[in-house]
Amino acid sequence: MELLFLGTGAGVPAKHRNVSSLALKLLQERKAVWLFDCGEATQHQILHTSLKPRRIEKIFITHLHGDHIFGLLGLLGSRSFQGGESPVTVYGPRGIKEYILTSLKISGTYLKYPLHILEIEESGIIFEDDQFRVITALLEHGLPSYGFRIEEKDRPGELLVEKLESLGIPKGPHYRKLKALESIELSDGRIVHGIDVTGPKKHGRIVTILGDTRPCENALMLSRHADVLVHEATFSTGNEEMAKEFYHSTSGQAVETAIRAGAKRLLLNHISSRYTKEDSEQLEKDAQSRFPVTKVVYDFDEIEIPVKGIMD
Amino acid sequence: MELLFLGTGAGVPAKHRNVSSLALKLLQERKAVWLFDCGEATQHQILHTSLKPRRIEKIFITHLHGDHIFGLLGLLGSRSFQGGESPVTVYGPRGIKEYILTSLKISGTYLKYPLHILEIEESGIIFEDDQFRVITALLEHGLPSYGFRIEEKDRPGELLVEKLESLGIPKGPHYRKLKALESIELSDGRIVHGIDVTGPKKHGRIVTILGDTRPCENALMLSRHADVLVHEATFSTGNEEMAKEFYHSTSGQAVETAIRAGAKRLLLNHISSRYTKEDSEQLEKDAQSRFPVTKVVYDFDEIEIPVKGIMD
Repeated sequence: MELLFLGTGAGVPAKHRNVSSLALKLLQERKAVWLFDCGEATQHQILHTSLKPRRIEKIFITHLHGDHIFGLLGLLGSRSFQGGESPVTVYGPRGIKEYILTSLKISGTYLKYPLHILEIEESGIIFEDDQFRVITALLEHGLPSYGFRIEEKDRPGELLVEKLESLGIPKGPHYRKLKALESIELSDGRIVHGIDVTGPKKHGRIVTILGDTRPCENALMLSRHADVLVHEATFSTGNEEMAKEFYHSTSGQAVETAIRAGAKRLLLNHISSRYTKEDSEQLEKDAQSRFPVTKVVYDFDEIEIPVKGIMD
Repeated sequence: MELLFLGTGAGVPAKHRNVSSLALKLLQERKAVWLFDCGEATQHQILHTSLKPRRIEKIFITHLHGDHIFGLLGLLGSRSFQGGESPVTVYGPRGIKEYILTSLKISGTYLKYPLHILEIEESGIIFEDDQFRVITALLEHGLPSYGFRIEEKDRPGELLVEKLESLGIPKGPHYRKLKALESIELSDGRIVHGIDVTGPKKHGRIVTILGDTRPCENALMLSRHADVLVHEATFSTGNEEMAKEFYHSTSGQAVETAIRAGAKRLLLNHISSRYTKEDSEQLEKDAQSRFPVTKVVYDFDEIEIPVKGIMD
């Protein structure tokens, strides 16, 4: 599980920061990539990475501002042109369906794969399977902007194969049951409990990715105990008035949310192009003085989110 | 007057050829830039040039395929964000208005300048003032695709200031009349004719820019005696069957149109990403063997279109 930042700028593209897009790579977990926002030229950014558009399974759109959606149609079209055949689901605020369908129709774009578009109606769980659960909630921005909390489910520990062999348990259906923490009865009458022959269970990881927002309760709720919180920092600390006026956050406010939520790590993106590289470094240093596990991310940064054992 | 190629590829962006866009720089002529097509990331390409989005006065869209329009909304939005205040007119096929208005509405994009959208209803003159005339005609493509013939009007020659001084003609209103080729009577009764005190008139230049097309009569008509013809070459000579199937042209067919139309120079763009740099060079060489004044253009190529005197 890795986060690959494809665009970390705000509002308009600059030479070294493109507009918003972020890939959550779940290649080991489900051979898939989930994309969060798709600003213009996201597909161009992808050309400079090893990411395969056909692997994109889901696209979550935080809000409908142009710097978060104007790359969507190009990406969907190119994915088809390049042979993508598996379905894609787009989740986004009301209006995303009209935007996509109108653009497809007028541009005469035919997709060779099924495209599902789910408009977010209310806060809550918008996706769940046996691996992941995605929870969304409305933030505070100029137009409806959502945050997404991706919860990986806990997974049973690995089977302790040496122990199984020493107990003389034959491979096969027994193994599957024990791994699922069931108890089995062997032909000689012995009872074996799954819990005794598996390692510690793996805790699911929590990744929170917020759309543009002022500090708010829902941002806090979504970020609770997240292993990684991705938070916008359109302005630097001290510009709270301006941030409020434009419905954004300062880096200090992002830190505040991370600390109050008990998040374990903070990644700051959506950095205004007014800030030079030196400004960004200063902004990072200031944030680290209060919350050391903070990082200002740049385009093409890839952040690994390590598997958690029971002790983490 | 220069042509600045911003995207010379076909269908999908590649690392070294972006999707379609072409700027006709009219800075000396009218302090303006006219854009032809606006594929995704055209505004990103512009970041690497000296072109100022606020100078863009007109945008001509040949057809509505995604690789020709998906950069339009980002460019229009950023032009406003960056302080562009003068009006912009977009000319394009029916549907362009719905595409732009829907995208502006859904993305909550507010433009600080007046935007006019003119849908092309039929072939003919779509713009004319005292400097330029733009003629459009329908080509042959999978959906309605237009070509544009930009005709600069002839301009009177420069005043021959030394001659005027030797004739003792005082500066002022006389000069203006003489430059406009009128005749004047001096206070001493002498008659002076404008034609005698001006240099040779300057012939207007003709630039023809075609959208994606099969070879057709309207392509020929629009290209007649053009100083520069910009023609697609999605396929190389020999692939006429494939070109026909996908409503495109081969480089050989583009050469044929240029020769038959008596065009003075041919620029080939919309080159498929299947062609390597070596392929492009071979394609150019083949074309030059029949029409030596042919050039395959690359992203960021800038081609000057020199002023023509009476002898050209």
